[in-house]
Amino acid sequence: MKIDILSLFPEMFTGPLNESIVGKAVEKGLLNISVTDFRDYTTNKQHHVDDTPYGGGAGMLLQAQPIFDALDAVSERENGLGRVILLDPAGKKFNQKMAEELSKEQHLTFICGHYEGYDERIRTRVTDEISLGDFVLTGGELGAMVVIDATVRLLPDVLGNSESAPGDSFSTGLLEYPQYTRPADFRGMKVPEVLTSGNHQKIAEWRNKESLRRTFLRRPDLLEGYELSKQEEKWLREFKTKYQDDQI
Amino acid sequence: MKIDILSLFPEMFTGPLNESIVGKAVEKGLLNISVTDFRDYTTNKQHHVDDTPYGGGAGMLLQAQPIFDALDAVSERENGLGRVILLDPAGKKFNQKMAEELSKEQHLTFICGHYEGYDERIRTRVTDEISLGDFVLTGGELGAMVVIDATVRLLPDVLGNSESAPGDSFSTGLLEYPQYTRPADFRGMKVPEVLTSGNHQKIAEWRNKESLRRTFLRRPDLLEGYELSKQEEKWLREFKTKYQDDQI
Repeated sequence: MKIDILSLFPEMFTGPLNESIVGKAVEKGLLNISVTDFRDYTTNKQHHVDDTPYGGGAGMLLQAQPIFDALDAVSERENGLGRVILLDPAGKKFNQKMAEELSKEQHLTFICGHYEGYDERIRTRVTDEISLGDFVLTGGELGAMVVIDATVRLLPDVLGNSESAPGDSFSTGLLEYPQYTRPADFRGMKVPEVLTSGNHQKIAEWRNKESLRRTFLRRPDLLEGYELSKQEEKWLREFKTKYQDDQI
Repeated sequence: MKIDILSLFPEMFTGPLNESIVGKAVEKGLLNISVTDFRDYTTNKQHHVDDTPYGGGAGMLLQAQPIFDALDAVSERENGLGRVILLDPAGKKFNQKMAEELSKEQHLTFICGHYEGYDERIRTRVTDEISLGDFVLTGGELGAMVVIDATVRLLPDVLGNSESAPGDSFSTGLLEYPQYTRPADFRGMKVPEVLTSGNHQKIAEWRNKESLRRTFLRRPDLLEGYELSKQEEKWLREFKTKYQDDQI
C-alpha cells in the first residue's frame, strides 16, 4: 500500500509513523508513506498558505492553490492519487467497516487541514470526507494517523501472531470480554476461578457471557444489529432483570 | 494543566506533542507533559510487560504490575494522578462535551495499552474509560493524543485570535458553513456572490442557511437536540421538499 499525506506539519508524523505497527509495516516493505508539505507549493513570496475568509469573520482559511498544486505534483509522481481523504468534522464518521474498506485500496492520499478551516473548493478534489467523531481537533494530522493506524493493522502480514485482529472488539459484534494474565493474585485481586479451571467449554461460555454483559451495560446500541443465540437470549433476560434497578 | 502519559512507545509522542498547538501551549507554560515508559517499572529481569491470557487464547496481555507501579510512582511525584484515563474501545465515546469537561481539570493521567489487551485489574485504577469511536487501533497512544489535542485547544490563552474556537462545528450545534478565501475565481470555480457583496446581514443569513443545509444533508441526527428559529424551520421545510428525491 502507498500512502501520501499533505500536511503543514510533517514533523508531527515522525514519531507515530516510525514507531509501533505502522513503522513495522514500512520496515517489512508492506507500506510506503510520503509526507508532502504543501507550503512548498505556495506561489507567493511569503509562503503564506492561508488568507482571510470572504464575507468576514474570525480565523484564517487554507487556500485552494497550494493544496491543488501539491495534489497535482503527487498525482504526477505516483500516477494518480487513489482515494483522496479529507479529515473534517462534517465528514462521515470513521468506523471499523471503513478501515476494512480502505485496507483493500492500493493508494490513499490524506489532506490535513489545520486550525481554522479551508477553502470550500478543496472538497472538489476529495473522494472521502472522514470525521473521527463529534469533537474538534486543531488539525487533520491526528485524524489521518488514526485512520492510517486502523487501516494498516488490517493489511495482510502486518500483525504478528501475538497481536491477532480477529478477537477484537467490534469484529464479533460484541465488546471484548475481561482478560487476565499472571499473577493469579495481584494485590489481593484474584483471577476468576473458571479461567484457571482448564475446562475449555466453561471458559468459552464465561467469555461469551461476559462479552454480552459488557455490551449490554456499556453499548446496548451494538446489540441492535447483533443476532443472538438461544443461550445469549437467556443471558440477556437475566441481565435485564439483574440490572433493571441499577444506575449504569 | 499537568498531563502524565504512561506508554511503552514514548517516542510516538515526540512529533505530535512538540509541534502544533500542544507544543505551543507547552512553550507558553500553560501545559506540562511527561511521558513515562512503564517498561521501566517491570520487576522481571527480561523487562517483559506482557504475558499469555488465563484461560487460553491468542495474543498477549499487559500485566497489572508495571502499570500499577508506574501509576504509584507518578502519583508520588505529582501528589496524585488527577483523572486517570484509559483509552479502550469499550469506553465512553469521546465528544466535545467531554473535551470541555477535561479542559477544566488540573491534572490528567493517560494509560496507553498496546496491541493485545490488558489485565482487567488495571481498570480498578481508572476514573474514565474513553473510546474514540467504533474502530480498533494498535494502541492507546493515538487516542491519548487526540483527547489531549481536543482538550488543550480549549484551555484559556492556547488558541490565538486567528484560530478562535467559538465558530467551530459542534459548538453552535450545526456543522460549519462553507468558507472561501482568495482568489475569487480559482481554476474557474467562483466564490458565491453574496460573500463579496459587503451586505453583512445577507452574509450572516447565507451562512446560517448553509450550516443548516449541510447539517440536514450530512448529520440530521444533530438536529434532534437543536432548537430551530422560525427562519430555520422555514429553511428546513424547503430542504425537505428539495432533497426528498435525492439519494444522499
